[in-house]
Amino acid sequence: MVHADLASQGRAVRAAARQLAQAPDDTRQRVLRAVAAMLDARASELLAVNAAEVAAYAEGGPGRDRLLLTPARVDAMAQTLRDVADAPDPLFEVSDASTRPNGLRVERVRVPLGVIGVVYENRPNVTSDVAGLCVRSGNAAFLRGSASAQASNRFLVDLFREALRAEGLPEDGVDLVEDPSHEAAVAFMQLDDVLDCLIPRGGRSLIAAMREHARVPYVLDGDGNCHIYLDASAPVERAVRIVDNAKTSRPGVCNAVETVLVHRDLAARVLGPLAAAMPSVELRVDEEAARWLPDARRATEEDWATEFLDLILAVRVVDGLDEAIEHVARYGTGHSEAIVTEDSENAAQWVRRVDAAAVLVNASTRFIDGGELGLGGEVGISTQKLHARGPMGLRELTCQKWVVRGEGQTR
Amino acid sequence: MVHADLASQGRAVRAAARQLAQAPDDTRQRVLRAVAAMLDARASELLAVNAAEVAAYAEGGPGRDRLLLTPARVDAMAQTLRDVADAPDPLFEVSDASTRPNGLRVERVRVPLGVIGVVYENRPNVTSDVAGLCVRSGNAAFLRGSASAQASNRFLVDLFREALRAEGLPEDGVDLVEDPSHEAAVAFMQLDDVLDCLIPRGGRSLIAAMREHARVPYVLDGDGNCHIYLDASAPVERAVRIVDNAKTSRPGVCNAVETVLVHRDLAARVLGPLAAAMPSVELRVDEEAARWLPDARRATEEDWATEFLDLILAVRVVDGLDEAIEHVARYGTGHSEAIVTEDSENAAQWVRRVDAAAVLVNASTRFIDGGELGLGGEVGISTQKLHARGPMGLRELTCQKWVVRGEGQTR
Repeated sequence: MVHADLASQGRAVRAAARQLAQAPDDTRQRVLRAVAAMLDARASELLAVNAAEVAAYAEGGPGRDRLLLTPARVDAMAQTLRDVADAPDPLFEVSDASTRPNGLRVERVRVPLGVIGVVYENRPNVTSDVAGLCVRSGNAAFLRGSASAQASNRFLVDLFREALRAEGLPEDGVDLVEDPSHEAAVAFMQLDDVLDCLIPRGGRSLIAAMREHARVPYVLDGDGNCHIYLDASAPVERAVRIVDNAKTSRPGVCNAVETVLVHRDLAARVLGPLAAAMPSVELRVDEEAARWLPDARRATEEDWATEFLDLILAVRVVDGLDEAIEHVARYGTGHSEAIVTEDSENAAQWVRRVDAAAVLVNASTRFIDGGELGLGGEVGISTQKLHARGPMGLRELTCQKWVVRGEGQTR
Repeated sequence: MVHADLASQGRAVRAAARQLAQAPDDTRQRVLRAVAAMLDARASELLAVNAAEVAAYAEGGPGRDRLLLTPARVDAMAQTLRDVADAPDPLFEVSDASTRPNGLRVERVRVPLGVIGVVYENRPNVTSDVAGLCVRSGNAAFLRGSASAQASNRFLVDLFREALRAEGLPEDGVDLVEDPSHEAAVAFMQLDDVLDCLIPRGGRSLIAAMREHARVPYVLDGDGNCHIYLDASAPVERAVRIVDNAKTSRPGVCNAVETVLVHRDLAARVLGPLAAAMPSVELRVDEEAARWLPDARRATEEDWATEFLDLILAVRVVDGLDEAIEHVARYGTGHSEAIVTEDSENAAQWVRRVDAAAVLVNASTRFIDGGELGLGGEVGISTQKLHARGPMGLRELTCQKWVVRGEGQTR
């Protein structure tokens, strides 16, 4: 029965997507602004629904925090919707226009993907952020949140449905999978006649389930095992400041640094100050770094491959740029990789040879984020290479259609 | 053992990809030109290898023809390589450059995907075309052809390996899966630590196997159930000429037309001339069209959904643009959809409302092809929306990397 219900719900979302794709820009903007206004007006209702879910949540720790909404978080959700409404329309941009030798006029036009499926975990703000980005870009959003946040998510989805109706658009343009079972999640990933794109936002088990079960094209928002390489020429103060920021400003996010690679010639000067600057961070160091940090725990092979998402930092001394690049190629997850250097040739090599969604020179990995890069909001950060790489904003929720105009040409 | 062999072969291809990504443009061009020259010089050897495979091939019909190489086909393969070598370098184009308020300089740079896996059927020319496009775009090509063409494919792959070695590049940048079993094909589709992108070129069973087994992002080169809608205002001579060309110029390809939708007001005038112009084509018509074509076979529900790939054409009379668009939405596969009309508003509606990789006005669907649209060669025609839509040329074998340059910025 799960499958039948989900399929009929999916057909309704698909039909709505066709209408949303034709909605004028100002109509799409008004939907987002209306939801933002409703979030302001009905914040206390939403907070009460959410508080009941938080109270019922069995576990403590980060899962509980991710589930929790606060007045400030609701304000931030409304502000994000207003920002996305203010962003330029991603649709109908024309590119690659040409006239072929036979007179055919060819161009590519940017259009919505259609139905975006998103599978995510506790955070209710994802519901609002993703639905807003989808509607703004002319897409329908079909959402599968976690059971623990179902009531908060339902409340938010209903605001969007109300706003869509008020604008004469089909309310099914935003919908939530009702059945929170694992079986329904698997069926959801296989709705290849409904979903044009599937975006998982969650941990390793979700990614593994996607690879195993999905029959729909997806964009992986994968792990961020990010590195910073401190080159021989890196100024100590700058190196310490960037690493400290990348590790401690928000350790639980994917663009936080997890391993620092230190040039052998810099190790003696930088490792002491680095440890002193981050007393709350547990360092896990290789044999060479231990010469300067004798009290630190020794890093294991597993540490190099781990996204700690915590106040833990692995430290390894390398012979130079090549060894640093090899380390990143072996252990990196293709997210964000930074070098701190004064050597322009080494910076250029790093930019060119490191294979990742983002490479940085003399800046914190924490900047790899849709807002920081100027995309407005983001629906996730892609660590794969197809379709979107790095932060996914409005444009990444579109595709291009070829348009060919002739006067009766045949081949 | 299959898995272990394939994995170690895959690791070698992956290592080669890292070097290919750094190869200068002229080196990549020289590899393609060298293979073209070897195809000229050693055509008779290749033809002998291929003739033995054709002789051993059990079935007749289109499969045998697809397997067969001729001197003209080998010439065409060499010419394609020269054309791809002459095309502009798709790599290192910079876009979206900006300076953020905090002084960070941000840009996106076009880089290779890495390792492209292609699964295909008989045609040995795919080996040469795909390997050429991959090398030109700085990617490694890992190919899985069919058992019946293994020797021809091996011969071609070895030419690329020889040319790569001669340019100081790793020969593993082009390789062929040795084991032609189904088990190895499934293992191939799951090489998520080797392949960055998987492109299936084949029929429905291959696509179904991809959806079932692939654990790597893929771009589907799917069916082309293409339509032409003859609007009320379509001039009869032009309408007949376009349909005739789209059906009969090469009925076995994906951009051939399969169903013609005819406006009720045009039916009486166009259906007789249409049938008369294509005496070799079997028409399958709905009740309404049968009024004007009483001897034609009646179309079944299944016919609307069928990609005939043959001299068969389904014909349906519709009340107008809306019904035509609904028919395409229901039965189309998102490939190429054309309207013939003199009415500019109807043309604009068709372009905007039909959801397909390509929409055409007053031109044959046969133009939706990488060469015809000016892409040089093509690695396939995507009928999905993620990453690439429509013909995939060199640019579709690349992705973009974010590059961020700062002076010590932290967040």
